Amino acid sequence: MRILLVGAGGVGSAVVSIAARRDFFGSMVVADRDPRRADRAVSIMDGRFTAVGLDASSPADVTALCREHGITHVLNAVDPRFVMPIFDGAYAAGADYLDMAMSLSKPHPERPHAETGVKLGDDQFAQAERWVASGRLALVGMGVEPGLSDVFARYAADELFSEIDEIGVRDGANLVVDGYDFAPSFSIWTTIEECLNPPVIWSADRGWHTTEPFSEPEVFDFPAGIGPVECVNVEHEEVLLIPRWVGAKRVTFKYGLGSEFIDVLRTLHKLGLDGTAPVRVGGVSVAPRDVVAACLPDPATLGDRMRGKTCAGTWVRGTGKSGEPRAVYLYHVVDNEWSMREYGHQAVVWQTAINPVVALELLASGTWSGSGVLGPEAFAARPFLDLLTAYGSPWGMEER
Amino acid sequence: MRILLVGAGGVGSAVVSIAARRDFFGSMVVADRDPRRADRAVSIMDGRFTAVGLDASSPADVTALCREHGITHVLNAVDPRFVMPIFDGAYAAGADYLDMAMSLSKPHPERPHAETGVKLGDDQFAQAERWVASGRLALVGMGVEPGLSDVFARYAADELFSEIDEIGVRDGANLVVDGYDFAPSFSIWTTIEECLNPPVIWSADRGWHTTEPFSEPEVFDFPAGIGPVECVNVEHEEVLLIPRWVGAKRVTFKYGLGSEFIDVLRTLHKLGLDGTAPVRVGGVSVAPRDVVAACLPDPATLGDRMRGKTCAGTWVRGTGKSGEPRAVYLYHVVDNEWSMREYGHQAVVWQTAINPVVALELLASGTWSGSGVLGPEAFAARPFLDLLTAYGSPWGMEER
Repeated sequence: MRILLVGAGGVGSAVVSIAARRDFFGSMVVADRDPRRADRAVSIMDGRFTAVGLDASSPADVTALCREHGITHVLNAVDPRFVMPIFDGAYAAGADYLDMAMSLSKPHPERPHAETGVKLGDDQFAQAERWVASGRLALVGMGVEPGLSDVFARYAADELFSEIDEIGVRDGANLVVDGYDFAPSFSIWTTIEECLNPPVIWSADRGWHTTEPFSEPEVFDFPAGIGPVECVNVEHEEVLLIPRWVGAKRVTFKYGLGSEFIDVLRTLHKLGLDGTAPVRVGGVSVAPRDVVAACLPDPATLGDRMRGKTCAGTWVRGTGKSGEPRAVYLYHVVDNEWSMREYGHQAVVWQTAINPVVALELLASGTWSGSGVLGPEAFAARPFLDLLTAYGSPWGMEER
Repeated sequence: MRILLVGAGGVGSAVVSIAARRDFFGSMVVADRDPRRADRAVSIMDGRFTAVGLDASSPADVTALCREHGITHVLNAVDPRFVMPIFDGAYAAGADYLDMAMSLSKPHPERPHAETGVKLGDDQFAQAERWVASGRLALVGMGVEPGLSDVFARYAADELFSEIDEIGVRDGANLVVDGYDFAPSFSIWTTIEECLNPPVIWSADRGWHTTEPFSEPEVFDFPAGIGPVECVNVEHEEVLLIPRWVGAKRVTFKYGLGSEFIDVLRTLHKLGLDGTAPVRVGGVSVAPRDVVAACLPDPATLGDRMRGKTCAGTWVRGTGKSGEPRAVYLYHVVDNEWSMREYGHQAVVWQTAINPVVALELLASGTWSGSGVLGPEAFAARPFLDLLTAYGSPWGMEER
């Protein structure tokens, strides 16, 4: 297996650190728009790693780089604006493809808070047939959320439930960053994108539909000492992926943003500062959202100042294998102190990064195989969860 | 009286419209950095008005223009960064001077939220002696707030109270701008500047001192249907002016920003988006505050879309002339619909502009006279309030 990792930011750098401890692949080319950033990501690793520069917005450049290095698998670790050029570039090169976020949505032009427009991943699923026809695999949404959360859904359907009423991905943390008034622990660009888009919900009777941002707040009690956090509906890939492979009457995603973060996002939207279209300022043009990101500290650099734990998981409610009413929360917790000490990467990016490495290892061994555009829940869950545990990062389950 | 009006922006243009209906002056030269803007301001007026270009940052240019036109009174209607060059330029030309905002403050270097540093107007008052010595008048802070609010304080002291416990200027509005989620009716750049500076308070025991931004929130019930608005301490000239001429145990200024606006300002500050130092974004450098301004509509263009009223006023609490406990709110309300119809100027700029015109007329008639650097409360209040009413814009008073 010869891997091209696109993006040497927070998640990409953590992928390198995690993969360096495994021997399932022969080589990994680490590409970034900024070659120095790619250099830094691979600097302490073994000879299997190479750093290069790459313009990820160019499918032709992605294809050429794949061909140059005989790449078999492309792992996309840049922000979702670049999903399509990397996805297309990998296809043209005959490589398999993995990502951790799917192609972007567009709200319904007339009824954005009721109906879906272009959904997350639609642009990718539209090409599923040609991926099947060429026998190649695009494993989409293979981070922690989406990713591990989808694996949990599949595990619940296979091993815990005979019928599922609701699958609700629930994400919460008690992370704090010392020394900053406000310092998101994950890319603000992506957080704005997912939180300000109309949240999508799937139900058996209505199919996919949308609501107002931040709808249906609930307090979810997270394990491992995190405790209760206010969660709201957010647009997320799991809602688009899970219903394709797992039977459930309803699928939701709620993010434990907390009231302060919700307020910040609402304000940015109100002032137009979430916009991605350039505005003229003096003699130059800039996208307001890029200015917001530039004013905040880089989340990848905050690990030393962060404290607390982050929890990703999937809550499932329905009928158990013996016909009893059952509800469980399947989850994965990372303590920032542990991930910094063990890997030198903060908890949120590390938790995202470990899952595609586990998936690549399952593909390398042939435990997972397939063709087409598939989500993590299209594959057997148990081997994934066992290998995740073998990586030293176990998961948990609570009856609710 | 030959007037030089510096600045043909929102307030300056409204000054021209108001003054054109009065015959107390012989001529008015309207100067702006952009001569076309000065042209537009005087285009429909009578032959007493002349438009010229002027660099207001140059005291020498101000002096030369005064001499060229035999100016007797300079009215400064540009932003407070230009107070000192215009003030100095007028002095050198032997002209009297009026402004609507005083020279800028600098926070205390070590204890910005407890002690004053350089206070608003300090640079002007430092030159008071030479204005007295040459028999010339600098009437500072002569808009609506500061300005009319100071006249109200003097009126209360002269005619309503035997002893004053507190004078609190309170400013509130119910203006809305149709078609926008969020559209300030005045410059967001300036609002950030004044609201994020440490607010100043005067008390008889501590003198001038400062607090945290947005301190001491209170809900003030404004008249004329505006109703209750949340007001917070803001740095403003009245607190520096009133205690110099009017006896009171405490002087404050609270601005009815409303909880939404306060929340926006706090969020901008929390994210560093209030900053004026450029940040790198992609290949360019921009000041975040300029990006915020660029994302919002230009307030000068919003008059036609605005609805509602703005209220400026002074709340006074103490002992009445007969020894009874008394509290009053002296106020002036402008309805945007009225000011747009009557003058073609939106309520906030029109309300600022009328007061220096009234003051100039009182100086022209000799009703007001003096020398040195003086605030509006250094002069008799009754003639001002009567002339304001005669202009068709009456004031009001409520017992509280």
